[in-house]
Amino acid sequence: MSKALTAMLDDAWARIEAGTATADAPMRTCVLATVGQSGGARARTVVLRRADRPAATLEIHTDTASDKVAEIAAEPRGTVLFWDAGDMVQIRAEVRLSCRDGRPEEWDRIPSGSRRAYGGTPPPGAPLTAPEAHDPTPDPARFAVLTARIDRLEILHLGSAPHKRAVFDATNGFAGRWIAP
Amino acid sequence: MSKALTAMLDDAWARIEAGTATADAPMRTCVLATVGQSGGARARTVVLRRADRPAATLEIHTDTASDKVAEIAAEPRGTVLFWDAGDMVQIRAEVRLSCRDGRPEEWDRIPSGSRRAYGGTPPPGAPLTAPEAHDPTPDPARFAVLTARIDRLEILHLGSAPHKRAVFDATNGFAGRWIAP
Repeated sequence: MSKALTAMLDDAWARIEAGTATADAPMRTCVLATVGQSGGARARTVVLRRADRPAATLEIHTDTASDKVAEIAAEPRGTVLFWDAGDMVQIRAEVRLSCRDGRPEEWDRIPSGSRRAYGGTPPPGAPLTAPEAHDPTPDPARFAVLTARIDRLEILHLGSAPHKRAVFDATNGFAGRWIAP
Repeated sequence: MSKALTAMLDDAWARIEAGTATADAPMRTCVLATVGQSGGARARTVVLRRADRPAATLEIHTDTASDKVAEIAAEPRGTVLFWDAGDMVQIRAEVRLSCRDGRPEEWDRIPSGSRRAYGGTPPPGAPLTAPEAHDPTPDPARFAVLTARIDRLEILHLGSAPHKRAVFDATNGFAGRWIAP
């Protein structure tokens, strides 16, 4: 792989890893796109919790009762999308998603103020008479980890001239190639 | 509809409309999620070009040769996702997408420096030997407008306590209801 492609891939992973380490990093949040249970594409903003370059995986935390858990059980192929508006860099990860129970040591690391994202009565999406009618009591049994295994990374740099766009496929060890932007 | 729900919907449209008017508005960019031609969800960052609340439509410009045009021809149901990281406000629009040719007067309004997004040889996604091998000459015949007709708006406010989440459906005139966050 050319030095320029290697540098582009290294830069993308550095940005992703910064997202897992720094609260105000541009790639702290990303978008998880899935296929809805009745078809069509769905998307929501999520927080990137972990990234493992050697394993080519990303991790996101979720409530087991959320729509996305049911959606990926039916169709695991989705996209995790990162966008750095300042640098005009987009990273699209085409992924296969799976869901497992969160481990007690993972739960212990979640700040108490953030645990309300897992649990709550009624469950996400259920009707409420008013926002105050929701009981946000956390439930560790509803804490789950989504693992996104990367099949393809597509990286787009719009901040440079010429624009640069490259794809890196898992099937050939993430060797990259340039494509038209 | 309660005043609080009306206020939430009005606020969402004000944010969306600001996105069409102000270059640095948080909702100037959004994510368009579609279903890939071989299945699975795809997503990319796009610029919001126009919003029409009475018609419940959003507009995005595209190159006719981009993957998303072929994808929506096969599956028009997608999501347009907005996220304001400062205010912790998310707007998810479940939409039906269609594509039409751009009009000459629309082309004329595009700054010359931005026209390279429509056209270019080879077309988006085609192999390149290097980024410099791409000829970005614009082509008005490749300029198209995606119209996203909103079936449902889901609005989430995470910056307030309690969190607020509501859905507004086109089928009942965008009357809203609260749901669990």
